[in-house]
Amino acid sequence: MNHDMDSCIQACLDCHRVCLATVAHCLQRGGSHAEASHIRIMLDCAQICLVSADFMIRGSTLHGRICAVCAEVCRACEQSCSGHPDGDDAMRRCAEACRRCAGECERMAR
Amino acid sequence: MNHDMDSCIQACLDCHRVCLATVAHCLQRGGSHAEASHIRIMLDCAQICLVSADFMIRGSTLHGRICAVCAEVCRACEQSCSGHPDGDDAMRRCAEACRRCAGECERMAR
Amino acid sequence: MNHDMDSCIQACLDCHRVCLATVAHCLQRGGSHAEASHIRIMLDCAQICLVSADFMIRGSTLHGRICAVCAEVCRACEQSCSGHPDGDDAMRRCAEACRRCAGECERMAR
Amino acid sequence: MNHDMDSCIQACLDCHRVCLATVAHCLQRGGSHAEASHIRIMLDCAQICLVSADFMIRGSTLHGRICAVCAEVCRACEQSCSGHPDGDDAMRRCAEACRRCAGECERMAR
Repeated sequence: MNHDMDSCIQACLDCHRVCLATVAHCLQRGGSHAEASHIRIMLDCAQICLVSADFMIRGSTLHGRICAVCAEVCRACEQSCSGHPDGDDAMRRCAEACRRCAGECERMAR
Repeated sequence: MNHDMDSCIQACLDCHRVCLATVAHCLQRGGSHAEASHIRIMLDCAQICLVSADFMIRGSTLHGRICAVCAEVCRACEQSCSGHPDGDDAMRRCAEACRRCAGECERMAR
Repeated sequence: MNHDMDSCIQACLDCHRVCLATVAHCLQRGGSHAEASHIRIMLDCAQICLVSADFMIRGSTLHGRICAVCAEVCRACEQSCSGHPDGDDAMRRCAEACRRCAGECERMAR
Repeated sequence: MNHDMDSCIQACLDCHRVCLATVAHCLQRGGSHAEASHIRIMLDCAQICLVSADFMIRGSTLHGRICAVCAEVCRACEQSCSGHPDGDDAMRRCAEACRRCAGECERMAR
């Protein structure tokens, strides 16, 4: 496995973890943090990042297609976190993980 | 595959779907419906039900251990839904799916 | 939820189940049935079908993007199953589930 | 989140990745490496490790129950890899990741 793919897998697994942790954090804080669309995009992002990692780990020929969609979901999640009116440190970390993962996935995308 | 296992797989897949749909519904309603512990147990239940189904579908020798834990999570989710102070039809349907899945999984448990 | 989406969710969950069962079947049979690329595309298909169902169940705005990729993976899996030199009934059922799921996902794709 | 849980989450994510990579490797090698029961326990292990990580990341109250089952699956996978008649470096690495994850999960188990 080449270095780029290895780095992308790690970024996807990190983003999976950060998104899921941020879901838990935002639900705990409640109010605008627990808004349906915000929680939903983080659940979406956590799930597709894991799948993107798995396709690469398996060496699947279609991994580039999954990475392309994963990058789109990451960008949407980054926006939801960085543009949140009550953004806090947890959300900034989530936005940062999404941004990094989106960049890595875009390099693998087909 | 015997009839009991087939029936349990279907109950798990149904419960996965109902729990995830109820997460979306409760986040949309907000307030006490979107309370962290309530959303979390439904996410837990949706995930372990899918895994329980997958272990049975694969014919894994350890499926009985997963079913045992799945039943516990289903019982906790049933309680969170049926005991909710602002319970609505969606939560009642979720409690019912959890109750049915718990029963099926208990029969497969080891 | 409209009827088309409900039907697509069910097709995805069915395809998830059939692909995973066919993986178990093909590994058991061994030989050409257990060829790496064949098992891998069925694992890919089982996973993305579940994700596609989950995005729709959650009402995610990006579900159409996932459905588009899911349809591609289903088509590749259908081809691997229907074009297999030692195709048997299990593989024919898998190809049929993939074909149906691909069609449903293409209708939801964006 | 305390240090023990953080370390367990990381061990679970590592084990998920190594198991899935070893599935791909063993399918590629074929023969006794692709034996149904061996591939299946690695798929089981990859899946439950991810779930175990997710329960901890979400801060789920039932994570200790999942960790207990995860440890059992990891021990079975470790045995399948370390006891394989044609064991190679990839399998040894997989056995090592399973052993470490089992140990971490046993400390979190309830």
